[in-house]
Amino acid sequence: MLGVCYYPEHWPESMWAQDAKEMRELGLRYVRIGEFSWSRIEANAGAYTFEWLDRAIETLANAGLEVIMCTPTATPPKWLIDKYPDILPVDINTGTTRGFGSRRHYDFSSKNYFREAMRISEVLAKRYGEHPAICGWQTDNEIACHDTTHSGSVAAKSAFQAWCKKRYQAIDKLNREWGTVFWSMEYQNFEQIELPILAVTETHPAHQLAYRRFSSDQVISFHNRMIEIIRQYAPNRFVTHNFIPMVDTQTDNYALAENLDFVSYDNYPLGRSDLFFADRPAEEFKPYMRTGHPDFASYDFDQSRGISKKNFWIMEQQPGPVNWAHHNPRPEKGMVRLWSWQAFAHGADCVCYFRWRQAPFAQEQMHAGVKRNDNSKAAAWAEIEQMRDELTTVNFSIEAPVQARVAIISGTVNQWVSEIERQGDSYNHQKTEFSYYSALRQLGLAVDFISTDSDFEPYDLIIAPCLPIVDDTFIKKCQQTSAHFVFGPRSGSKTDELSLAPNLPPGKLQTLLPIKVLSTETIRPDCNEKLFYQGNTFESRCWREELHVPNGATIVASYHDDTPAVVRHGKTTYVASLTCDAFLISLFENLANECAIPNIRLPKDMRIVQRGDIAYVFNYASYPQEFPDQNMGSFILGQAQLNAFDVAVIKINNT
Amino acid sequence: MLGVCYYPEHWPESMWAQDAKEMRELGLRYVRIGEFSWSRIEANAGAYTFEWLDRAIETLANAGLEVIMCTPTATPPKWLIDKYPDILPVDINTGTTRGFGSRRHYDFSSKNYFREAMRISEVLAKRYGEHPAICGWQTDNEIACHDTTHSGSVAAKSAFQAWCKKRYQAIDKLNREWGTVFWSMEYQNFEQIELPILAVTETHPAHQLAYRRFSSDQVISFHNRMIEIIRQYAPNRFVTHNFIPMVDTQTDNYALAENLDFVSYDNYPLGRSDLFFADRPAEEFKPYMRTGHPDFASYDFDQSRGISKKNFWIMEQQPGPVNWAHHNPRPEKGMVRLWSWQAFAHGADCVCYFRWRQAPFAQEQMHAGVKRNDNSKAAAWAEIEQMRDELTTVNFSIEAPVQARVAIISGTVNQWVSEIERQGDSYNHQKTEFSYYSALRQLGLAVDFISTDSDFEPYDLIIAPCLPIVDDTFIKKCQQTSAHFVFGPRSGSKTDELSLAPNLPPGKLQTLLPIKVLSTETIRPDCNEKLFYQGNTFESRCWREELHVPNGATIVASYHDDTPAVVRHGKTTYVASLTCDAFLISLFENLANECAIPNIRLPKDMRIVQRGDIAYVFNYASYPQEFPDQNMGSFILGQAQLNAFDVAVIKINNT
Amino acid sequence: MLGVCYYPEHWPESMWAQDAKEMRELGLRYVRIGEFSWSRIEANAGAYTFEWLDRAIETLANAGLEVIMCTPTATPPKWLIDKYPDILPVDINTGTTRGFGSRRHYDFSSKNYFREAMRISEVLAKRYGEHPAICGWQTDNEIACHDTTHSGSVAAKSAFQAWCKKRYQAIDKLNREWGTVFWSMEYQNFEQIELPILAVTETHPAHQLAYRRFSSDQVISFHNRMIEIIRQYAPNRFVTHNFIPMVDTQTDNYALAENLDFVSYDNYPLGRSDLFFADRPAEEFKPYMRTGHPDFASYDFDQSRGISKKNFWIMEQQPGPVNWAHHNPRPEKGMVRLWSWQAFAHGADCVCYFRWRQAPFAQEQMHAGVKRNDNSKAAAWAEIEQMRDELTTVNFSIEAPVQARVAIISGTVNQWVSEIERQGDSYNHQKTEFSYYSALRQLGLAVDFISTDSDFEPYDLIIAPCLPIVDDTFIKKCQQTSAHFVFGPRSGSKTDELSLAPNLPPGKLQTLLPIKVLSTETIRPDCNEKLFYQGNTFESRCWREELHVPNGATIVASYHDDTPAVVRHGKTTYVASLTCDAFLISLFENLANECAIPNIRLPKDMRIVQRGDIAYVFNYASYPQEFPDQNMGSFILGQAQLNAFDVAVIKINNT
Repeated sequence: MLGVCYYPEHWPESMWAQDAKEMRELGLRYVRIGEFSWSRIEANAGAYTFEWLDRAIETLANAGLEVIMCTPTATPPKWLIDKYPDILPVDINTGTTRGFGSRRHYDFSSKNYFREAMRISEVLAKRYGEHPAICGWQTDNEIACHDTTHSGSVAAKSAFQAWCKKRYQAIDKLNREWGTVFWSMEYQNFEQIELPILAVTETHPAHQLAYRRFSSDQVISFHNRMIEIIRQYAPNRFVTHNFIPMVDTQTDNYALAENLDFVSYDNYPLGRSDLFFADRPAEEFKPYMRTGHPDFASYDFDQSRGISKKNFWIMEQQPGPVNWAHHNPRPEKGMVRLWSWQAFAHGADCVCYFRWRQAPFAQEQMHAGVKRNDNSKAAAWAEIEQMRDELTTVNFSIEAPVQARVAIISGTVNQWVSEIERQGDSYNHQKTEFSYYSALRQLGLAVDFISTDSDFEPYDLIIAPCLPIVDDTFIKKCQQTSAHFVFGPRSGSKTDELSLAPNLPPGKLQTLLPIKVLSTETIRPDCNEKLFYQGNTFESRCWREELHVPNGATIVASYHDDTPAVVRHGKTTYVASLTCDAFLISLFENLANECAIPNIRLPKDMRIVQRGDIAYVFNYASYPQEFPDQNMGSFILGQAQLNAFDVAVIKINNT
Repeated sequence: MLGVCYYPEHWPESMWAQDAKEMRELGLRYVRIGEFSWSRIEANAGAYTFEWLDRAIETLANAGLEVIMCTPTATPPKWLIDKYPDILPVDINTGTTRGFGSRRHYDFSSKNYFREAMRISEVLAKRYGEHPAICGWQTDNEIACHDTTHSGSVAAKSAFQAWCKKRYQAIDKLNREWGTVFWSMEYQNFEQIELPILAVTETHPAHQLAYRRFSSDQVISFHNRMIEIIRQYAPNRFVTHNFIPMVDTQTDNYALAENLDFVSYDNYPLGRSDLFFADRPAEEFKPYMRTGHPDFASYDFDQSRGISKKNFWIMEQQPGPVNWAHHNPRPEKGMVRLWSWQAFAHGADCVCYFRWRQAPFAQEQMHAGVKRNDNSKAAAWAEIEQMRDELTTVNFSIEAPVQARVAIISGTVNQWVSEIERQGDSYNHQKTEFSYYSALRQLGLAVDFISTDSDFEPYDLIIAPCLPIVDDTFIKKCQQTSAHFVFGPRSGSKTDELSLAPNLPPGKLQTLLPIKVLSTETIRPDCNEKLFYQGNTFESRCWREELHVPNGATIVASYHDDTPAVVRHGKTTYVASLTCDAFLISLFENLANECAIPNIRLPKDMRIVQRGDIAYVFNYASYPQEFPDQNMGSFILGQAQLNAFDVAVIKINNT
Repeated sequence: MLGVCYYPEHWPESMWAQDAKEMRELGLRYVRIGEFSWSRIEANAGAYTFEWLDRAIETLANAGLEVIMCTPTATPPKWLIDKYPDILPVDINTGTTRGFGSRRHYDFSSKNYFREAMRISEVLAKRYGEHPAICGWQTDNEIACHDTTHSGSVAAKSAFQAWCKKRYQAIDKLNREWGTVFWSMEYQNFEQIELPILAVTETHPAHQLAYRRFSSDQVISFHNRMIEIIRQYAPNRFVTHNFIPMVDTQTDNYALAENLDFVSYDNYPLGRSDLFFADRPAEEFKPYMRTGHPDFASYDFDQSRGISKKNFWIMEQQPGPVNWAHHNPRPEKGMVRLWSWQAFAHGADCVCYFRWRQAPFAQEQMHAGVKRNDNSKAAAWAEIEQMRDELTTVNFSIEAPVQARVAIISGTVNQWVSEIERQGDSYNHQKTEFSYYSALRQLGLAVDFISTDSDFEPYDLIIAPCLPIVDDTFIKKCQQTSAHFVFGPRSGSKTDELSLAPNLPPGKLQTLLPIKVLSTETIRPDCNEKLFYQGNTFESRCWREELHVPNGATIVASYHDDTPAVVRHGKTTYVASLTCDAFLISLFENLANECAIPNIRLPKDMRIVQRGDIAYVFNYASYPQEFPDQNMGSFILGQAQLNAFDVAVIKINNT
């Protein structure tokens, strides 16, 4: 299914009907509207003006489109800010109030804003909840974007103190669990607790972790109450939210997704690539500058599927150059189609393009649309037409799942630990996780992102690139499954309050693998060292743990000085260092083979994923490439020889 | 004519007479004084102490020198700041008040400061307006330096609201023209409008552009009122201002210059080069580290001439190492002379050296003077002596103009657009303009900088490196002249309120050239691509527009994928990408030839410019070079074989 | 002697006795405690709880250990901050209050804190001053760390005004000596003086220098009063302080050390190396990433010995990876021993390891200890055991001094000049001083760091890498000694109020060497030029002075253009440029030979130093190296062929 994001308030009403007609012709079914429209639906306190919106919905419905309505809470209007200035968040790095004039200018801890945001949501939900043209709802917009999860406001401080009181009950417990005796940071009561910001030097890691948990909880409370209100008035409509990349929410994404019907993701492969790969040299970056790295979009797709354990939507799909990265290249011809197919292949049920027509004004005027601001058809148009037709050809079942035998355990708490305790500037949680993911994908393996709470039974190989905090339940679950486990460095190293594991890292994981981390060092990223594995030489990078390996455990790979770097015991493997990608591919290839998970060394820049009984093959290269497995099935789209930036779809042989 | 900047208040009165005598002996005619002297002429509110200044002027006059008097408003004294703390400006990036203790600590929107600055100017003008020794006046000092055009103060906010009200009349008009419906930024009244600073993320571009226009207007109002006061009391004296580089004023330089008799420029080629070329690798930078790039000083000279459409002064000429750049090399022996000659050649009527004697104390004690702080003669002395003698030899007419057949259209609004809407981090307005200018200069072409309001008739080739905002008048003027036009990327792309051209870029320029920009991409500066032109391969860099080229237009150059990169229609050429310098030289060479403008591929680091019937040749190289055109005329200074860092002057043959 | 830092309050009381027992077994004699314990000894205002501390001391004493008690003033507890919020310092770069939540959150100008810090110090000193188990005291902790010498508070401003009044007596004198006439910065009274921070552009250098002197004086007053209180109640106990590297205190280190019995230093070679050598390329950095540069630890040792003119302690010795640098490698096996021996060799009387056991919680949980957090023995344990045994073998006399015939003149005022007046971004005071020091050490020369007030008689060669401010007394002392002097660039260039030397640089040094610095240039660090010396070609870098050299002075080395770069007159040599290290080695080798100071070109990464009649040889290389002087004496530890990271100790032949 395809859809589009539309802002009728940006265009003369006279254009709406033609727009709607063309949307249908292009094969679009869904239209998302209402986002950011607060100043148009409530121009002054209580002065509602819904008539235009009624007409817009009607026009779209008349053309056969289904409407997704948004709460407009990402952009409170000026009159509301002036009425309640405490709505504005405070920058945690400077202590300065973050003002009106862009978007997301609200503090999740502002009680005034909580009330007002729920009020406008309720007004909207009441009016449109049972509207026949409205099939579903989107909450807010890209929650947490622009670092808005964290605020240094008075309201945040007071709410944090209450949160601490609730979590720890007694101040002595907090003192003990955090370890505030260090540096005389002990508190006598909860009212003494400051936010862990703007101190003379680094603040207490347990304090920081608590503040992040609190901030995440504030986001979730806000969001859950909004869902609740919508559900109250909008029966039988779906509620979703358009997520930014999980790494950027600073929120427990599983919890944020929990009460939604499904997760939506805003997919901007080029803008995100520009930022994520900014430190890569030109020779590595340039081949992908108009495509993104072959594993980069799917990394977010698989996470989107993972946090809700079901299929997802793309609510915003980049249709051309965007405006917000450091550099904003144009997608290669074919990439909008390729990304769309890739989303479907990884579990999307619908892809909505952002936006229908390029806005001629304001901050996003250089952000491409499906149509240009002069109403001509932009480059994406033809690719969406092609999608429309090819979707009919392929006709995949929306019920068909992506079935993975490999899972990556991922979670925001782990990310927080590595952000709070850098230890080495070159350790980066997301880059680490991505390198593990990419290695698996280069072997043609489907990957689920799961939490430690997930069911492990479906998997034969479970990989935790970075899992510092584990609990007994997790250990028990590991013991009860037959899956192989691979843990990256830092795993098991911390308690739930960000203290060191009392029995040394990998802490509770010692139950699975009786090693101890004797010390940890971090290394400059330009000072790599050798890593020996199965007679080949790879690289140890940035983070190295010194291991004590008792009898019974096997040394799988060694450092330059022949001390153990990767160790295995039973079905548990521990990787004590960051490594080069080539090592991870070799390691995972061996493990997959051992687990009898079919895998294949794909040609560089070719990827495959299977959903239901259909396999999708993608060629990210700027030259044709041959898909190596000729016997997989029959091509229902394309052929084994894929053109540059091309897609092929294979109906799998049922043998 | 030569002159010098002098601070009698820094030295014992006993030294003044000897200083004046030596100035005359060195061939200096003008002495600028009074700058920064506020605390000495008004030590406390209303307590004027002009006697020392009277004596200083008398001493200078007695030696036969003419005095340029300055208003001291760049440095309000402490007692005034303590009386009116709202004089201090507010940093727009942090919201912090910018305190006393250096210079330019005033807010152009402070009503108290406006009144006080005009008061002291009037007191001075009354006292010295008709003084026979005073030939002219300098307003303030380096207006806008240290990013002082913009302030985030309460006064600025209130003045900005009034400015908006005046410009837009009705709030609905502002909402409509800016496009505030985007992100619910609509206002109900002008009092709701904030400064576009310190928001959660980027603010509205139209809002930013309005704020820059407002800030520019504040500077101009302040400055114009000061000129008015001086003129009231100082009949028949010139009024000038010493400009910093145009790019740094954040002010409409044409408007700022409008009421002056002529523009003065403060010329520091090495300090400016250190900053401007900071990103260049050593092998490119080092050859020029003690000379500046051959086109860099003249770039500012030609702009100084351009903004007032007449000859200019150098009010401050670097005489040795300065103190304020990241690195401060010493000029190569001969460069003070070379820069002085280069200024005259490009239209200067007078060159004043800064400063007479190196100050032994305070912020600029490492800034060289004509004399050292021990009163010995510094390196510049001998070069100024040489200038004194050579000026007599050459004896050029001060009425003689630089006559250019090539013009570059330049304006601060264009710069603002590219600063507000970066789109790609590597797009830089000044670097783009400089690359176009330098290409022209390497062909020996004289260049005028003009505004869109200028008379186009004198020119055969008019080049707009970056002209996003154009109006109908401009288009009409283009149509009415016979000149060839070259437009760089972004040209015509925006409306006057920084929206997209409704008919797509290049907007109104489509009247001249029926192309459309279908999309725009920006590229990392290390990911250049090929550009094909006349069988040669050049480079496309950083900014690439995708063009629709209808029949009738000619594709001049193509991208790596053979799509059009440079297009021509009639006498209008559109360059859709940033390119390497070599391409610009080739393109301009061909166009100059077509326009029958004499040009020449000069030896690297040699430059020529003609003023009246005299040509000036400069060798920036550290080795001798031969001037290639032996038949141009007769050498009245130097010879065809120029030494390192040497100058030659040729009386043109009248054939 | 060996010792350790211990925090009994971090551990169950049940562990104390065993800890104490093991300390003794490891050969430790001293235990430092009490640091950061304020919240445990005064949980609320006046509610003292010393009983646990009494028991801890008793337990340690019972095991035969001697206790060093600390004042806990580096970490005022939250209740005290809440009672007196003005204790918190203000960031001079942002104007923001630096909050509670880490350490050193106090303003040296807060009168409330001064009183409270002295109160708690007095309470402690009264209680434990004559306790038989307590052998000495440590004041505060790492004074000035985290840039806390400078504060932008109201209290600091007011104290600074009073300081100025005291120093200059009359405001006219201040105006005259600073030169405030420049830029109208003149004051009418002391109450007008602001802190030199947060101004529009750079503030007055004399103002900045005064502020730094003031801030230094505030630290010293605070510290001296604390020493006084301790001495009042703790007769016959030593008082020391654990210094951070001298460059980081922003305080006159000689004055700070003056009233102490001896100086202690906190020695973290790897963390400090990571920061100090961060700009070095990998090929230079990597060989030392787990050892530190061979001269880096000893540079701090020699400074520690120098500021008090006597032997010193290492109060905190890095035992493994730390947590606070950008990257935190593990020491090579043997380095904890090597650094310990190196400290003794350079004049340490005691080395205390930090910390006994790795803390499982809070900011330093990734900082290694002698024991791991699970109470197992960390890598350092075995090396400390080896130290214990080898100390018995070597049995050096604690009275034995390091005797140097070469001295480096060093002082914080010189550093301030180069920080206030950068002139070139690549001039760095510490890197300059270190390059001079390292060149001397590569020649096997022992080096004393001395102030201009020191006795010059013991030295044959005295080197001032950067000495801008000199007075007549210094010149007289130079004339009265027979030592050779070498002055680096900038020397003698400034008056005591940071004005230019009136007779041009090198100012008063012209008495020793009749040269004049005609101009000074600074150069990008990637634009080095040639330096010619004795037929060899070296490099001139970053800072170049143009010299006038009269007859009678000898040109020792020349720039690329054959102008003088290094000049000598009698026994004074002036180096007018920064240079490569190789040049300094050659120059110092020649001067040492001339002075008949024995020296030797040591193998790369080998170092030697003599204390009393014992020589210590260190091999920093990762491979064995032969000590070249076979006849020096007999090996009492190790042998001439040193292993990687090994130490040898030689009893010198008395011939």
